[in-house]
Amino acid sequence: MSIRTAIFGYGNLGKGVELAIRNNPDFNLVGIFTRRDPESVKIYTPGVKVYHAEKVFSMKDEIDVLIICSGSATDLPKQTPELAAYFNVIDSFDTHANIPVHFEKTDAAAKAAGKIAIISVGWDPGMFSLNRLYSACILPDGKDYTFWGKGVSQGHSDAIRRVPGVKNGKQYTVPVPEALEAVRSGKNPELTTSQKHTRECFVVAEDGADKAEIERQIKTMPNYFDEYNTTVNFITEEELAEKHGGIPHGGFVIRCGKTGLNNENSHIIEYSLKLDSNPEFTASVLVAYARAAYRLSKEGFSGCKTVFDIAPSYLSIYSSEELRKHFL
Amino acid sequence: MSIRTAIFGYGNLGKGVELAIRNNPDFNLVGIFTRRDPESVKIYTPGVKVYHAEKVFSMKDEIDVLIICSGSATDLPKQTPELAAYFNVIDSFDTHANIPVHFEKTDAAAKAAGKIAIISVGWDPGMFSLNRLYSACILPDGKDYTFWGKGVSQGHSDAIRRVPGVKNGKQYTVPVPEALEAVRSGKNPELTTSQKHTRECFVVAEDGADKAEIERQIKTMPNYFDEYNTTVNFITEEELAEKHGGIPHGGFVIRCGKTGLNNENSHIIEYSLKLDSNPEFTASVLVAYARAAYRLSKEGFSGCKTVFDIAPSYLSIYSSEELRKHFL
Repeated sequence: MSIRTAIFGYGNLGKGVELAIRNNPDFNLVGIFTRRDPESVKIYTPGVKVYHAEKVFSMKDEIDVLIICSGSATDLPKQTPELAAYFNVIDSFDTHANIPVHFEKTDAAAKAAGKIAIISVGWDPGMFSLNRLYSACILPDGKDYTFWGKGVSQGHSDAIRRVPGVKNGKQYTVPVPEALEAVRSGKNPELTTSQKHTRECFVVAEDGADKAEIERQIKTMPNYFDEYNTTVNFITEEELAEKHGGIPHGGFVIRCGKTGLNNENSHIIEYSLKLDSNPEFTASVLVAYARAAYRLSKEGFSGCKTVFDIAPSYLSIYSSEELRKHFL
Repeated sequence: MSIRTAIFGYGNLGKGVELAIRNNPDFNLVGIFTRRDPESVKIYTPGVKVYHAEKVFSMKDEIDVLIICSGSATDLPKQTPELAAYFNVIDSFDTHANIPVHFEKTDAAAKAAGKIAIISVGWDPGMFSLNRLYSACILPDGKDYTFWGKGVSQGHSDAIRRVPGVKNGKQYTVPVPEALEAVRSGKNPELTTSQKHTRECFVVAEDGADKAEIERQIKTMPNYFDEYNTTVNFITEEELAEKHGGIPHGGFVIRCGKTGLNNENSHIIEYSLKLDSNPEFTASVLVAYARAAYRLSKEGFSGCKTVFDIAPSYLSIYSSEELRKHFL
């Protein structure tokens, strides 16, 4: 049984999904949809056609699952509910505060159409959320901590590039080792986001730009940098391309909880990711949940789901018997 | 809504369940069942009665979920199917090779009775299994590694105590730091269990015993020690009680997988546990899954399940709305 899959949106994430599908033999990529001129888009997979986004509705009966690879800021809030009225869909909506609204809209559309939608799939939200949930259920008397990095923050890199005199730049979010150790020690410290992370910037300045002023503007930028311990390194465009061309990321979810007659026993649950490519890893999670969407739909379920609602066995290519035998 | 819960078997694990229930306000402990003389058993919870194990069947209608806290060697294979014919049950059956048979027997009994059984709940099998599964689904092109420890192995401690001249003893399984680092580096090394672990023994010898001979017998013991790098430390009974009285355990599940056009990107997913009390942590997992069993049963499901078959939201005291808002 082959899962006829299409990709909607072909940026870094869409490319990652295209590559992830190669590692999952039960998937069959039937098309890639883009808002750009399809002729201008080169893809990796021979034999697969690129279509204009508007064409997607006419291919309703040829697609089992549509993986939506658009941005969370303005595209997904509109596209996911719209597409869930026609397709089983997956997205990686990651604006945490707006998830409840996004869920309600998508749920209404999917239910009316008898389709499955799984939203906010990836690693945070996604695998990190799962680990926060499992750990909190096991150790209710405890506290959890999420650290991000070391990794590239797209939003902060964009912010750097808007500073006058900056030609190019990249920002890494870096967990503070002492904060990590304090959490792992079981002391349950109170830590703000800025106490848990430092920000490392690599900046290419324009010729003749005032570097001291650039550094001052970055370090004092409200919301983005002012509350953080920020380092600014000036480098050449060549060095930026050579040493900072990737999109690595990762992080840690740690819960410390207590049990015992007098809370005398501590337990630390730690989940961590170290990713060479943030979009390719996120894409790999999307594909696993696309399998779940396909199966749930086949079983007659409909409506919007999140990673919390999906039994793990639905993600696997293996049967329940095989899973019990080899993974349990 | 209160989940009327009973504990069947009152050793370390049963005691852990009794304590874990205190951290979960939706549970109500209605009884503890033991094969010992109930009069001889002292428990922590005022007002809860201790009954003889045989009495359990007569309390069929007063118990929503029965948490079976017996051993995997001979008790659970018999008790779980037997009790699943009357109760929703949870067990921590951990003989990996026999899980398929245990599943089939329990499934038949539970289905016939319209009850839910969740078997092999704990951390390995259990949370470690979940992490092996999730990681394998996300990174199919990869390899996973399970390390155990540092922690007390009951089986190996028992083996030490059977050596002539040994009065008492405790064995710790310890992950080899270099093996852990090799795995984390993404090299996907081939490693046997003995290359991943060393064994550290603390032994109290009887007066006048031949310590060299004890050490030789331990280190050359087939299956248990002969293939491992084993250290034997002789200590006093007092030191054993003082420094090695606990039952700590833990370990690591690490998967390294590749993505990209030419597998050029590596990703490391690592899950680890550091537990002061192995039985209390296992008990905490059992209670979370007892909540799931109760809910699944209320929804009309029946049959045997494992952690792979349970959507994470079923473990939580919170509603789906709350989970999406606060955990996703």
